[in-house]
Amino acid sequence: MRDDCIFCKIADGRIPSERILETPDVQAFLDIGPIVKGHVLVIPREHYERVVDLPPGLLHQVIDAVHRVSGAWLHILKADGVNLFQANGAAAGQVVPHVHFHVIPRFNNDGHHWNWASGTYDAPDEIVRTGERLRAALR
Amino acid sequence: MRDDCIFCKIADGRIPSERILETPDVQAFLDIGPIVKGHVLVIPREHYERVVDLPPGLLHQVIDAVHRVSGAWLHILKADGVNLFQANGAAAGQVVPHVHFHVIPRFNNDGHHWNWASGTYDAPDEIVRTGERLRAALR
Repeated sequence: MRDDCIFCKIADGRIPSERILETPDVQAFLDIGPIVKGHVLVIPREHYERVVDLPPGLLHQVIDAVHRVSGAWLHILKADGVNLFQANGAAAGQVVPHVHFHVIPRFNNDGHHWNWASGTYDAPDEIVRTGERLRAALR
Repeated sequence: MRDDCIFCKIADGRIPSERILETPDVQAFLDIGPIVKGHVLVIPREHYERVVDLPPGLLHQVIDAVHRVSGAWLHILKADGVNLFQANGAAAGQVVPHVHFHVIPRFNNDGHHWNWASGTYDAPDEIVRTGERLRAALR
C-alpha cells in the first residue's frame, strides 16, 4: 500500500470509486474518464507497478476478473465488442504506476477508433533478426 | 483447427511465421504489420474467437506467455515500456477471429500515440447507474 498511489487509495476505500467486482486480492471499478461509457479498470489490491512485476498467481486472479467483466459486457449486457488494454511504463502511456487492465465495452458506431498505425519491416531479414533477439531473450 | 483461419494455419505451420515462443497449447510470433518493431502476437493453438470463449486454464497459459514476452522486452531487451492490447469483436477492431494478445514493445520517442479519447459521464448519477448494471450482470 503506497500513500502516494491513487489506485492504492481506491483499493482501500480512502478514495471513493464505483466498484463493480471485489475479491480478496483484486478490485474492479469504473474509469471516471471512459473511452466508452462502462470502461472498467481491474487492479490487484496490492501495489505492483507493471504486469511483469505481478507474481503468476496474482496475474491469474487479475485476468480472471478481466475475463468475468468481459463476459458481463458481451454475454449479459450485449456489447458488440470488448477491448483489453494495458500499459507498462510512461513510454507505453502508463499514467498511474499501479498495474491496471482496461476493459472497454465497444458498440457499433460508438465513435472510438484506435490509432492502429502499423508499419512494416524494412530489410527482408529484419524480422528474422528481431525474432532471433527475442528467442535469445526468452531462453 | 479451422481451415479458413489464418492463425490456425500459422499455429500448425501451414503458413510460415517468425515464431518466438512455443508451448504445447500456446504460440507467440511476430506481427508482420508491427505498431512498433518487435510487436508480438500470442495465441492459443486451438481455435477460440474471443477472450471470453477461452477456458480458464488456457487463458492462464496465454497470459503466462504474454507475461514472459513482456519480461523479455522489459528486462532483457530494455524496452522503455510494453503495451498489451486485445480486441474481441469487429466493433473492437478484431480482424482475425482467433483470439490473440498483442504485446507491443515501446520506446521513448517511438512515434506511436494511442488515440486515448476519454470522455466523461454526463449526469451526476450516470456512473452510479452504469455501476449498478454491471454489478447486476456480474451476480
